[in-house]
Amino acid sequence: MPTIDLIALDADDTLWHTEYYYRQAQNHFVTLLAAYHVPEQTALDVLHRIEISNLTSFGYGIRGFTLSMIEAAVEVTGGQVRGSDIQSIVDIGRGMTTHEIRLLPGVEETLESLSKGHRLMLITKGDALDQQSKVDRSGMSGYFRWIEIIPDKTPQAYADILKRHDIPADRFVMVGNSPRSDIVPVLDLGGWAVHVPYEMTWAHEAAVELPEYSRRYFEISHIDQLCDVIRNIEQISL
Amino acid sequence: MPTIDLIALDADDTLWHTEYYYRQAQNHFVTLLAAYHVPEQTALDVLHRIEISNLTSFGYGIRGFTLSMIEAAVEVTGGQVRGSDIQSIVDIGRGMTTHEIRLLPGVEETLESLSKGHRLMLITKGDALDQQSKVDRSGMSGYFRWIEIIPDKTPQAYADILKRHDIPADRFVMVGNSPRSDIVPVLDLGGWAVHVPYEMTWAHEAAVELPEYSRRYFEISHIDQLCDVIRNIEQISL
Repeated sequence: MPTIDLIALDADDTLWHTEYYYRQAQNHFVTLLAAYHVPEQTALDVLHRIEISNLTSFGYGIRGFTLSMIEAAVEVTGGQVRGSDIQSIVDIGRGMTTHEIRLLPGVEETLESLSKGHRLMLITKGDALDQQSKVDRSGMSGYFRWIEIIPDKTPQAYADILKRHDIPADRFVMVGNSPRSDIVPVLDLGGWAVHVPYEMTWAHEAAVELPEYSRRYFEISHIDQLCDVIRNIEQISL
Repeated sequence: MPTIDLIALDADDTLWHTEYYYRQAQNHFVTLLAAYHVPEQTALDVLHRIEISNLTSFGYGIRGFTLSMIEAAVEVTGGQVRGSDIQSIVDIGRGMTTHEIRLLPGVEETLESLSKGHRLMLITKGDALDQQSKVDRSGMSGYFRWIEIIPDKTPQAYADILKRHDIPADRFVMVGNSPRSDIVPVLDLGGWAVHVPYEMTWAHEAAVELPEYSRRYFEISHIDQLCDVIRNIEQISL
């Protein structure tokens, strides 16, 4: 008798590389601004500040990031940025909407194995367009019974999903790379959480204290350990 | 015994003004470009062309529209647009994310009345961030049992919603202002559709032939006629 009704996985940097593409875009951005004698660190600092302040209005995702790069370029060049460089920044953003999806190692095997004994859900935040496009391009959608794309991963957003699917929090496991988005809100609700750190974490996502020790919290270094952790959770929660 | 299980309504320009704010933003955009001696019609034509070609990569919504205004400004000024004007365009977009929601006349009374005898769903396309924010700001969310925000209103997207909620198409009514998004795909699936034209329609949405006469198709000039039409549909489909 399984004690876990639903296993949900984050997508970006849990199933496939995402931050890598943002870093690549940032590098391109820094290179463009070097022509205006803007130091790399200044460009990145201003971009990071603008990105955070734009989250409320422009949210997560490629389009908001692109608008933030444009604002940062105007600011750090004192308005001197050329139209052709603004166009290049828009083109960087457009390129991000179509890049190949690079799965992290072990992802497909793990999903295949997990999906045999459990109902899987993908929970990703960001705008529906970016996220749905990545899900489609990934070829992984067949492993998921449900795909939830939400604007932000708040405790309320998780509570709504559990309520809608009639799943008690203590029979729910969330798996992801972001403490802020995937781990803390789920532990707060009384669910189980498995942290799979990614090699790079966006500064905004990392800026949270990991919860104090909780028996419902696990950390693994690689997604191929997930099946073992799930078995472990099912033992504990019996 | 009701013969209709679900009434779904579009949001933008069906429940509240949206196109109005896009037109306002366009006017502001045209005014900015007048300083570069760009004729109004040129500015609008280029913007429209870029908007359409950006739909695949940047989708519907304020952020995609803002990026399109930026690209159009670069193009029509031959790259001469100043950084301060690029910043003004970003600010136009940001302002659109927080404007007040102006309900169309009769909307609240109609929702209140309809929701007494029927389950209502809001189906809106666009990015989750913009749309959820507008739903929240509108104060109307309490009338809806479900809120579906989808990237595009294709026949498949409607079919998925009906399947998920286990509703036969012939017991489903869709109400909205856009023939392309709200009417044609629903009639194609075998559902009922009620067209409530808005005073202005985005050229892209209008560019579709209305279906040939169908007994499942109705047009009303004002949303306060909707309750009568629904009664009518329930009579016909008995």
